[in-house]
Amino acid sequence: MRVNVLLFDDFETLDAFGPVEILGKVEDYELHYGSLYGGEIISAQDTRIMTERIDLVNTDGILVVPGGKGTRTYVDNGAFLASLKMAAEQAAYCLSICTGSALLARTGLLDGKEATTNKKAFDWVRSVGEHVQWKEKARWVADGKYYTSSGVSAGIDMTLGFVRDMLGEEKAWEIANHIEYIWNSDCENDLFCRC
Amino acid sequence: MRVNVLLFDDFETLDAFGPVEILGKVEDYELHYGSLYGGEIISAQDTRIMTERIDLVNTDGILVVPGGKGTRTYVDNGAFLASLKMAAEQAAYCLSICTGSALLARTGLLDGKEATTNKKAFDWVRSVGEHVQWKEKARWVADGKYYTSSGVSAGIDMTLGFVRDMLGEEKAWEIANHIEYIWNSDCENDLFCRC
Repeated sequence: MRVNVLLFDDFETLDAFGPVEILGKVEDYELHYGSLYGGEIISAQDTRIMTERIDLVNTDGILVVPGGKGTRTYVDNGAFLASLKMAAEQAAYCLSICTGSALLARTGLLDGKEATTNKKAFDWVRSVGEHVQWKEKARWVADGKYYTSSGVSAGIDMTLGFVRDMLGEEKAWEIANHIEYIWNSDCENDLFCRC
Repeated sequence: MRVNVLLFDDFETLDAFGPVEILGKVEDYELHYGSLYGGEIISAQDTRIMTERIDLVNTDGILVVPGGKGTRTYVDNGAFLASLKMAAEQAAYCLSICTGSALLARTGLLDGKEATTNKKAFDWVRSVGEHVQWKEKARWVADGKYYTSSGVSAGIDMTLGFVRDMLGEEKAWEIANHIEYIWNSDCENDLFCRC
């Protein structure tokens, strides 16, 4: 299974690399990093990462969409949204972290679906996707092939939940234990909900 | 304060980017990424990251040293160890994650100090630094300017502990809450100890 991590300038570093850490521990998952035009992408934490052009890679696998302050710009970038929509439609599964769900919502692909996002950016994200059934209290939400997580660190919990759904409970705990991660394994257990 | 993250091929991605996420939330910390020769470094999760030459940058600040399978090679790389030793000596604080403490131990700078590491690699790391006082049960250990953490995710807990030591309890919790991270704030609380 191919994993494509879609990056953009000012993405939140841990949004991407938490899930990457988990997915990289699955033997037959192969990690790739894409962006709209390829080349160097700079995260909100000044990490410079080399990427492939997303429209030139095979996106038939798992698509990972981080959030971060860059989403405030990319949510209005038509070319980026078209590439994201194409990649998300082609993907077998699509995982977004934090405000990455705002980008997905703007493509229309989450319309009618349940989803969540960072609790601190909830009102903004809701305004971006008015036809999405946003859940205020959720560490993460899975609706069909779309997995959306709450803020930053929640992406790690969600991705372990995704691995559990794909490969079973034992594999998910094996990975969590291997990286000495204290997994919040219940998607309903949301300590950061405003409600 | 300048933060220098020292990377090398096959470093463990989350070892570096967990701490980076935390340190990047401190207003006057400035993040930089270095390596032995500069240029592109590829993590164990196939992330391609652009770096500066570590011996050409100002390392008077916070040095971050990740672990990962690359440490098995770099622990015998004299040029790398010389650069690491120089950078660690110059740094005001030095934070290592997982088997990053094996690299530090090999420079001799941890001799006589308390330190910890990944519990799964404990015997190997101990063999690399025989004069270090290795603690088997610790989420992380602070001894003077050296902070060493247990495996991968423990680096996030340690870095929040470091921020607490530098800037106070409130700032550390503010960052943890902002990134919706469930902080294991007690360095003695080690759920992954073999003991």
